[in-house]
Amino acid sequence: MQKKKIILASASPRRRELMQQAGYEFEVQVSHKEETYISETPDDIVKELALLKARDIAEQNEAKDLVVIGADTVVAYQGAILGKPSSKEDAFAMIQSFQGDKHQVYTGVAILSYDEEGNETVVNHAVKTDVYVNSMTDEEIWKYIESDNVMDKAGSYGIQSGFAIHIEKIEGDYFNVVGLPISYIYNILKDIEGVGMQ
Amino acid sequence: MQKKKIILASASPRRRELMQQAGYEFEVQVSHKEETYISETPDDIVKELALLKARDIAEQNEAKDLVVIGADTVVAYQGAILGKPSSKEDAFAMIQSFQGDKHQVYTGVAILSYDEEGNETVVNHAVKTDVYVNSMTDEEIWKYIESDNVMDKAGSYGIQSGFAIHIEKIEGDYFNVVGLPISYIYNILKDIEGVGMQ
Repeated sequence: MQKKKIILASASPRRRELMQQAGYEFEVQVSHKEETYISETPDDIVKELALLKARDIAEQNEAKDLVVIGADTVVAYQGAILGKPSSKEDAFAMIQSFQGDKHQVYTGVAILSYDEEGNETVVNHAVKTDVYVNSMTDEEIWKYIESDNVMDKAGSYGIQSGFAIHIEKIEGDYFNVVGLPISYIYNILKDIEGVGMQ
Repeated sequence: MQKKKIILASASPRRRELMQQAGYEFEVQVSHKEETYISETPDDIVKELALLKARDIAEQNEAKDLVVIGADTVVAYQGAILGKPSSKEDAFAMIQSFQGDKHQVYTGVAILSYDEEGNETVVNHAVKTDVYVNSMTDEEIWKYIESDNVMDKAGSYGIQSGFAIHIEKIEGDYFNVVGLPISYIYNILKDIEGVGMQ
């Protein structure tokens, strides 16, 4: 059924899982290109980085009957990007800054598709989810930091792990916070000949 | 640390997982009481059923230094409850009714706690999450039904499985849709002596 080859340009096991769950056949190729950007806002930055990764992988393959998907996720609070913490103290400061308030998770998506003649179509978009975190005491923040592998997490938390108890609600796609806005991607892919439901 | 015994009055593996992930020590006891109710709205019904389950289990245990948690989840569309489908055709009709629109998932929670003298405190509450489903063609609905175990699912879909590609966004607690509003429960439990962070 699926005629075009799909390549997911991401090392993330969670993104892979979401693509599998959605029913796609695909392979994974990871871009090792340096992640530099010139954009200034979180949504533009993730779009740019997703495109950079997808473009890098597309160039390493024969660009015919091919779809390459790049993605990049960041946590943003008051317009500033929160990266991975440099220490547990840094994780504490990060969580303390956004507890009791809402912040944003942006995932940039780049979908490069090539028909049998090599003609390219580019979709590049950022999906936003608002995340509302309850007020937390210093004790609660430390307890969370000691219970999870925060050093590896942008924004110092994982919605799928023990931090769930501190999240009041979200507005947007949950899977976008996990790392891949799968319903957005599905809606783009279903209109691509050789991939979708035609 | 945790002095009171916690009993989760639910057979759901997903609820168990969420409680474990939140860091609680607890045991599971399943109520086999018939699930009848006199309430009329989805939120009142899940509250009543959660309380019925928790009360049934509390009565089977020594009500001292004990917390019993009951929960019940329903999918509601335009004020009517959508149960498990009776057939694949029924599942189709159900999904077709709410595609392209938002619906609600309500989880009722009952938390019965007993101090060392057997004094009871009751918390009984329903948590609502709005779920926005994209427009779906008949073909897409059938494809989903054939790909998942819908007969076992209230509302004919599971947010954690292949239906994620059709969900545009949610407003509320994601884990409430999975079956347990874990941040709500955490906030109640943390104020109970012998369970929380005091």
